[in-house]
Amino acid sequence: MRNVVVTGVPRPPLDQLDELARFGVATVHEALGRIGYLGPRIRPIQQGTRIAGSAVTALCWPGDNLMIHAAVEQCGPGDVLVVSTASPCTDGLFGELLATSLAARGIRGLVMDAGVRDTAELRAMGFPIWTRHVSAQGSVKATAGAVNVPLVVGGQSVLPGSVIVADDDGVLTVPAHELPRAIEASRAREAKEQITRDVLAAGQLGLDRYGLRALLGELGVEYVPYEQYLAGERRNV
Amino acid sequence: MRNVVVTGVPRPPLDQLDELARFGVATVHEALGRIGYLGPRIRPIQQGTRIAGSAVTALCWPGDNLMIHAAVEQCGPGDVLVVSTASPCTDGLFGELLATSLAARGIRGLVMDAGVRDTAELRAMGFPIWTRHVSAQGSVKATAGAVNVPLVVGGQSVLPGSVIVADDDGVLTVPAHELPRAIEASRAREAKEQITRDVLAAGQLGLDRYGLRALLGELGVEYVPYEQYLAGERRNV
Amino acid sequence: MRNVVVTGVPRPPLDQLDELARFGVATVHEALGRIGYLGPRIRPIQQGTRIAGSAVTALCWPGDNLMIHAAVEQCGPGDVLVVSTASPCTDGLFGELLATSLAARGIRGLVMDAGVRDTAELRAMGFPIWTRHVSAQGSVKATAGAVNVPLVVGGQSVLPGSVIVADDDGVLTVPAHELPRAIEASRAREAKEQITRDVLAAGQLGLDRYGLRALLGELGVEYVPYEQYLAGERRNV
Amino acid sequence: MRNVVVTGVPRPPLDQLDELARFGVATVHEALGRIGYLGPRIRPIQQGTRIAGSAVTALCWPGDNLMIHAAVEQCGPGDVLVVSTASPCTDGLFGELLATSLAARGIRGLVMDAGVRDTAELRAMGFPIWTRHVSAQGSVKATAGAVNVPLVVGGQSVLPGSVIVADDDGVLTVPAHELPRAIEASRAREAKEQITRDVLAAGQLGLDRYGLRALLGELGVEYVPYEQYLAGERRNV
Amino acid sequence: MRNVVVTGVPRPPLDQLDELARFGVATVHEALGRIGYLGPRIRPIQQGTRIAGSAVTALCWPGDNLMIHAAVEQCGPGDVLVVSTASPCTDGLFGELLATSLAARGIRGLVMDAGVRDTAELRAMGFPIWTRHVSAQGSVKATAGAVNVPLVVGGQSVLPGSVIVADDDGVLTVPAHELPRAIEASRAREAKEQITRDVLAAGQLGLDRYGLRALLGELGVEYVPYEQYLAGERRNV
Amino acid sequence: MRNVVVTGVPRPPLDQLDELARFGVATVHEALGRIGYLGPRIRPIQQGTRIAGSAVTALCWPGDNLMIHAAVEQCGPGDVLVVSTASPCTDGLFGELLATSLAARGIRGLVMDAGVRDTAELRAMGFPIWTRHVSAQGSVKATAGAVNVPLVVGGQSVLPGSVIVADDDGVLTVPAHELPRAIEASRAREAKEQITRDVLAAGQLGLDRYGLRALLGELGVEYVPYEQYLAGERRNV
Repeated sequence: MRNVVVTGVPRPPLDQLDELARFGVATVHEALGRIGYLGPRIRPIQQGTRIAGSAVTALCWPGDNLMIHAAVEQCGPGDVLVVSTASPCTDGLFGELLATSLAARGIRGLVMDAGVRDTAELRAMGFPIWTRHVSAQGSVKATAGAVNVPLVVGGQSVLPGSVIVADDDGVLTVPAHELPRAIEASRAREAKEQITRDVLAAGQLGLDRYGLRALLGELGVEYVPYEQYLAGERRNV
Repeated sequence: MRNVVVTGVPRPPLDQLDELARFGVATVHEALGRIGYLGPRIRPIQQGTRIAGSAVTALCWPGDNLMIHAAVEQCGPGDVLVVSTASPCTDGLFGELLATSLAARGIRGLVMDAGVRDTAELRAMGFPIWTRHVSAQGSVKATAGAVNVPLVVGGQSVLPGSVIVADDDGVLTVPAHELPRAIEASRAREAKEQITRDVLAAGQLGLDRYGLRALLGELGVEYVPYEQYLAGERRNV
Repeated sequence: MRNVVVTGVPRPPLDQLDELARFGVATVHEALGRIGYLGPRIRPIQQGTRIAGSAVTALCWPGDNLMIHAAVEQCGPGDVLVVSTASPCTDGLFGELLATSLAARGIRGLVMDAGVRDTAELRAMGFPIWTRHVSAQGSVKATAGAVNVPLVVGGQSVLPGSVIVADDDGVLTVPAHELPRAIEASRAREAKEQITRDVLAAGQLGLDRYGLRALLGELGVEYVPYEQYLAGERRNV
Repeated sequence: MRNVVVTGVPRPPLDQLDELARFGVATVHEALGRIGYLGPRIRPIQQGTRIAGSAVTALCWPGDNLMIHAAVEQCGPGDVLVVSTASPCTDGLFGELLATSLAARGIRGLVMDAGVRDTAELRAMGFPIWTRHVSAQGSVKATAGAVNVPLVVGGQSVLPGSVIVADDDGVLTVPAHELPRAIEASRAREAKEQITRDVLAAGQLGLDRYGLRALLGELGVEYVPYEQYLAGERRNV
Repeated sequence: MRNVVVTGVPRPPLDQLDELARFGVATVHEALGRIGYLGPRIRPIQQGTRIAGSAVTALCWPGDNLMIHAAVEQCGPGDVLVVSTASPCTDGLFGELLATSLAARGIRGLVMDAGVRDTAELRAMGFPIWTRHVSAQGSVKATAGAVNVPLVVGGQSVLPGSVIVADDDGVLTVPAHELPRAIEASRAREAKEQITRDVLAAGQLGLDRYGLRALLGELGVEYVPYEQYLAGERRNV
Repeated sequence: MRNVVVTGVPRPPLDQLDELARFGVATVHEALGRIGYLGPRIRPIQQGTRIAGSAVTALCWPGDNLMIHAAVEQCGPGDVLVVSTASPCTDGLFGELLATSLAARGIRGLVMDAGVRDTAELRAMGFPIWTRHVSAQGSVKATAGAVNVPLVVGGQSVLPGSVIVADDDGVLTVPAHELPRAIEASRAREAKEQITRDVLAAGQLGLDRYGLRALLGELGVEYVPYEQYLAGERRNV
């Protein structure tokens, strides 16, 4: 690990981030061909919040939040702070005081690959957080790390300045240069989904709408009446 | 795995399902002698919902939801769709569009042994879901599986046409022919628990009500005053 | 395991417990030098509740809640029941009837290192619970254990008569003789945090307030402009 | 759970079991269309052992091995004892003394969905074991369970009298009436694999042998030279 | 956590440790009434080694092995070093160089609640290790901890100067003042087990030897012939 | 995920790979400043093997090994195949037939972030494997993925053409342009460790050799005699 704080990372335009924030994680993920989802273990501590922002990254030593303090200075309006550790860590590296600092700088939220604490206060503040763990265990400030270097979180590479989208389904990272395409493709997908939704609500089946009946036949799936199936199975009891 | 869609699975009477739905999972589980609980890992995405329905089952390949589409056609009013995968899978095989389809057919909920997505929308729709994972990661439709075959979910065999009961404590499967007994036994247990509740609220101890004092004695449990116990323990520090 | 029920465990004064209950788990944990946190796996089933009480402990055999019944009799106003098992167990050893008993005796809550059930009813009752698992699976009453002996829960030794603090961040055990110091140190910490909070909200950085800039320098952390960093990294793709 | 000991379970012929034992778990699993694999968590405590036998099943309460003792009496030459618990359990429910009993009755091995102990002695005895856990923690004999009822182990239903195959890849259950087909299909698969092995060893690619080149094309997989790919990716750093 | 190095911890007599080392973990655990087993997650990196020694304890910060170096100085012949961390950690806090130091001082082995590395070299040296993780990830030396304070490892309190027994079944801690009783009780248990082993090898059943037939009857366990059981079950398919 | 097979990835010189293979994972990891370790969950199925090679990467859909077949064609002498899946997967995507193909092409080993099967045969062949899971469950060939794109395995980004080092401590990825420095730094570290080893074997303490005594003092670590410490602790029982 090179111990650096990278400064001056370019950000995507705020209005484009705001535009993308209207769409959910699942929609953007699909629209872009399924890249960058941080997986099912990074979960929100609140319900019903949806954000988009520009990633500022911090890589900490386990049990140590020194580099989060260094990262705060690199954060500005529209940013989302993304924190990981050099090896797995459950400790509460982030709490209400750091959130106060971030909120004062216009930061939109935190993605934490370790733990957070003061969760009641954080919810009361309305500061949105997605985290792997909740833990009251605090940290030291003794070992160097890095700020605004590429991280790996939840099986994905997260680049500084990339776009973060987060909601109740989890967290997504989108390459910055894909932001315009993400907006356009999400808009198109949403429109298409609205039509599909109406059709499905009216009773058409996905089997027919997506042309899956033929596929089932090609794959050799047979339709068998219950009594006939049961007769075969009873031999196995 | 035989690649079949079993049709015409018989359902338990809707009024009996409605009757059973009044009781909680823990009550029915106890009333029937502790069979069929799908374990502590299948959790609701909503709070305070209690349902009962008839199981339609779908067995998918990991990362593939083709058979869920085939299963929708086999679903009708009062059913609960139960989905498992051929090996462990965290992906979001089910989302808001499939829920729209199911809701249009009168289905009461979903039990998912993999993952779901669009959780904010699903809660907003009021479509009840119990799931092992929440994940925005989507699926393909490429590999055959089966519909309405016996599944294993959470260490239990779930048969098509069996009764599913679900609430904040998790999910239960009850053999269809046990439904009348389940209602009767749950009603009896509830009545008995109400009496016990009143007695305990009035201050009687379980030790006395359940006759456990004698058992403690038979098992050799001794009552020891604190100072005496402490004197013994201090030798160990 | 010695099969004993230890009686007459001394309790800390109720007014001091009430005083400590005003502070959160993270605050008390820090104030006392980070001792006794039961870790990130014991989680509340409710949100926004904060309690403090005196520990009554019960050690059960897996799948068996006999000793919880023995423990109830040892519980009184201001107590918190803490339950562990001789080996890991997910079963629902505690439900609404036991909560009715405890509530009738003025107990403030339950900390469970196995599972609980009837969670909807327990939330409706307003009986606060922190637990490792939620499970409808019930228990037997067949094997001896112990009441008011030291337990290990979440990597911490929990002594009978010690102070339990619990909120959305988890559960803390504090030695009884530390209670006055815990109150004083928490009060001091809260006051100091209020000042820090105001300063951070006004925009001062933790880097400056905590004197961390010098430390970053000593540890060899370099500040590198983005373009320069990128030039180095591009060699690695 | 019904508390029964089912007696007189029919066994498959010993010579057919011996015949099947020649093939590995992966081969039989494939030959039968991928049914009945007990998953990656049930692991051998020894290396290089391969067995086949007839399942005798025991369902125990967690922390309790009473029903293993009841099951021993139902075991005979060629059998494999399969043990599960009513809820997850890591305890060592089986050790060297029980293995001595089983070996004296001609039993071929143990499949344990909880824990075993005395592993050094068991390896020294040459008694083959597949288990979820190794734990020195012992058990009580206090609560009823069942013998020779269907179990669920590792996501599979295991019927008494079914065929168990086990080796370094794990454990497989095969319906008894499928045993002749399992032998025949495994033999055919082994022969086919020997030809494939020779061809692959001689350098032919699976892409060509299995006709996968065309599939890659249909699925839209493109071949891209490294420098061209790199040029695209560098935009993302 | 108080940051102390406790010196001059009294040790049990070496000849008694040697005497206890003859018995396995499971035997001593049973002989003493099932206390102090460190659970199924602390596993040996070698096979077939059995040791007993006196515990020297070290409590480290996650990712930091400073206190192991401080602990080495407190170690002498017959000791076993037991290391834990303030929160869960997978890093390799211990490797071949530290083992060289310990071996030079006559230490008998290491019990590690985090990770070790250089496992090939450690096996080649014949230095016995029980550990939760194997990881090449190294550590810093920056944060204080403690030496020879009570630790919690695997759900057990481990006191400095207590007796550690370890073999293929895991690790056990025995209070120092129990060592003579442990030897005597293990010897008695071993003798009794030898008789039981001979009887079981000769074909007597545990059901008869331990008087369990009557218990099965009292618990209501019924014996049911296979065909009769099957008739009942067939209704459920 | 872009569905591509990247061809013509440049490889590091074979003689440099051979040179690096002499050093262990832990040594190279330290020598390079602790980058690229794939973590404690990717474990060898054999013991005592150490390799280095050039990474060919394959990204598969869960339960599908189509892209491994496409990757084989891109492999040559000195390569190590590294396989990951789009979401977590335990299935046996790789077995003895694929190993036969790879061995015929001079490949040095496999790193698998899902599962392998035929482990007994693979050990017998002497084909080295590091894997997250062992599972007999086979795969389909139905869904596109990618070959020689960057993967994330065990929290690290693995680039095609990077250097893989693997032994009993796990797996390391080293950027190709760092290979000469890795060799030199590992050689230097090994030499230095030999001196340290001799000194430690002769009895010098790490406390003195690494100058840690002063650090302990600065951090406020106190040395306390046992009796004095005990007197303080006894108040807590």
